[in-house]
Amino acid sequence: MNKFICALLSALCIVANAQVKEDFVPSPDNQPGKLYPMVNSERCVRVKVKAPDAKSVKLDIGGVKYDLTKGEDGFWTGTSAPQDEGFHYYQLNIDGAEVPDPSSLYYYGCSRWGSGIDVPAADQDFYQLKNVPQGEIRELYYWSEYNKAMRHCYVYTPAGYDSELDRRYPVLYLQHGGGESEHGWAQQGKTGIILDNLIAEGKALPFIVVMDNGTWTNFKRADGSELKMGPRKPGSFGMNLPEDWTEGFRNTLIQDLIPMIDARFRTIADKDHRALAGLSMGGMETKEIGLRRPDVFGWLGIFSGGVISAAEADAAADFKQSNKLVFVSYGSREVGGNRQGPDPKQVTESLAAAGYNAHYYVSNLTAHEWQSWRRSLYQFAQLLWK
Amino acid sequence: MNKFICALLSALCIVANAQVKEDFVPSPDNQPGKLYPMVNSERCVRVKVKAPDAKSVKLDIGGVKYDLTKGEDGFWTGTSAPQDEGFHYYQLNIDGAEVPDPSSLYYYGCSRWGSGIDVPAADQDFYQLKNVPQGEIRELYYWSEYNKAMRHCYVYTPAGYDSELDRRYPVLYLQHGGGESEHGWAQQGKTGIILDNLIAEGKALPFIVVMDNGTWTNFKRADGSELKMGPRKPGSFGMNLPEDWTEGFRNTLIQDLIPMIDARFRTIADKDHRALAGLSMGGMETKEIGLRRPDVFGWLGIFSGGVISAAEADAAADFKQSNKLVFVSYGSREVGGNRQGPDPKQVTESLAAAGYNAHYYVSNLTAHEWQSWRRSLYQFAQLLWK
Repeated sequence: MNKFICALLSALCIVANAQVKEDFVPSPDNQPGKLYPMVNSERCVRVKVKAPDAKSVKLDIGGVKYDLTKGEDGFWTGTSAPQDEGFHYYQLNIDGAEVPDPSSLYYYGCSRWGSGIDVPAADQDFYQLKNVPQGEIRELYYWSEYNKAMRHCYVYTPAGYDSELDRRYPVLYLQHGGGESEHGWAQQGKTGIILDNLIAEGKALPFIVVMDNGTWTNFKRADGSELKMGPRKPGSFGMNLPEDWTEGFRNTLIQDLIPMIDARFRTIADKDHRALAGLSMGGMETKEIGLRRPDVFGWLGIFSGGVISAAEADAAADFKQSNKLVFVSYGSREVGGNRQGPDPKQVTESLAAAGYNAHYYVSNLTAHEWQSWRRSLYQFAQLLWK
Repeated sequence: MNKFICALLSALCIVANAQVKEDFVPSPDNQPGKLYPMVNSERCVRVKVKAPDAKSVKLDIGGVKYDLTKGEDGFWTGTSAPQDEGFHYYQLNIDGAEVPDPSSLYYYGCSRWGSGIDVPAADQDFYQLKNVPQGEIRELYYWSEYNKAMRHCYVYTPAGYDSELDRRYPVLYLQHGGGESEHGWAQQGKTGIILDNLIAEGKALPFIVVMDNGTWTNFKRADGSELKMGPRKPGSFGMNLPEDWTEGFRNTLIQDLIPMIDARFRTIADKDHRALAGLSMGGMETKEIGLRRPDVFGWLGIFSGGVISAAEADAAADFKQSNKLVFVSYGSREVGGNRQGPDPKQVTESLAAAGYNAHYYVSNLTAHEWQSWRRSLYQFAQLLWK
């Protein structure tokens, strides 16, 4: 967001605050017993923090810093402009210190553990905890021979996994974005709740989801050399990616993670029952790895992470006969306006016209944020294994 | 800790800082990529935080606030006096605002999600992640009819649980302390790592561990009335507990949680294969529930949460013939000095002399903190089911 728009939004917010609707309720994701942060029906966020000796306290959300006002009790309070539906990272700024809000829950994103808030959404029913048959999110460590280190991942197993012992399951490998980690889908992504609900309603077939850390700069190439981002350059998300930048993550995934999962869980261990999907950087990884290894992953989901064109698909060896699905999605705020590059909807429709099972989805009125990706998972899961 | 001792420690710290050993290394539990907080070989904690416009920044750890010093770059740095080995909650104070350190990982304790740091310990090997057969920590939700609500818990399953399908396992219900939650044992308690290591070494038999939220004030009595703490009074941990204060948690545990676990997991569902243990408040709950329901829990562990005297045990119906183990432990800093009340070692030895299988353990040079309880779990687990 450029500085002019920030300033404009700030100004609008000050106006908005003068007539803000006073129906604030505590956010569902506050720390136990905490009243703040709050959200009102206009999706404004209000925070309150004790800072008796501070000169300046700000709420930093959605790329805008909102000034808080000090009360006589030493508590500072302030309200943002209306936010999009869904989850947003945010922080407080206390006399220049960027710190988590001591009242919120904490999430990993923007390359830090910090505050997040869930703004209620009209369609939030699909990610609300319900009394339906419950799966599990399992936390486990495994040895990675490629990295010569223990690694940490989460595995979602659907309801019934521990009782229907003759049943084997397909597996989705589900990746986070840049500056995020394996915690993202398990926590703010609400993967377990979304899938439990979908499966209970009969809208998705039961499957396993594996969430590991795919931060590509954390891995080395097979020859031991480092993988590093170059300076930003125009196009290609503004990043200067090295040649075959997914090499380290791809080798970890295919040499260590998938064999461990297939040995430990009752999977159907073939490409027709193995999907790869991800958001942003994870979507870019899905494209890169999916085009190279159609023998490993038959189903692909790219959320806010680019597209696969018919030319790219046709050029990838064995891709056309192996691929079962290419799902592409974006938040509507990412693809509207004067965006550069080809329209992802058109590219995906051309892919479908070229004979691929290609689907395109737009999340209404959301940006490059988790609400787009929760909705994308909800859509994608209903297409898998069918 | 009284104010005089705090002031004394503060003064000692200022002296200590003048000659602090400059061999600081990043804490193992920092956020990814963060250099601070650091710890040196004298177990002093050093923090660093950017707060360019602040007038005063303090590190608040171990009941003492240490002043930080501002550098020209706007970063504040400061160092604590030597801390005990193990895990400590802490926070920063920025111009009067008590906030998490933006560089640390976050833990639930002291009734808030906030910063924690692990100070290396001479015996830390037992809770270090190793390439041994790995169990899982499973996160799941279940319906509680007693509470008419979904509840959240963690379940540790040992390595081999998903492959040795003919095997059934004993279960330990493991409770946190006051101001903590089900996250405590799963996260800072390092339950999964401790048990994986113990089982791999053949020092403990494989078993399941269930970690749920036992905060007794969160529950209602069976008749729907509230359970609340009265004003503090002398003795009995300074708390004025209502009559049968464990009623709500006990009913949840016995009516909902245990049946769910026994239905969902391959448990051995009898009191000879079911243990209850906890720290502090969780230890007090273990005593109360254990004495009332020896038909449900055959094995008890009370960590920093009181004792069971021979008189109490003899007075509890069916306890003597049902109980398999009473394990009592404390940190040495809790039981030394001019502590009031009976000596827990003597009480436990008297219990053993009265014919019970009673064990007492003291964690050397630790206080009412997680290092005492990690060590207690390590000891207790080796006695279970034998």
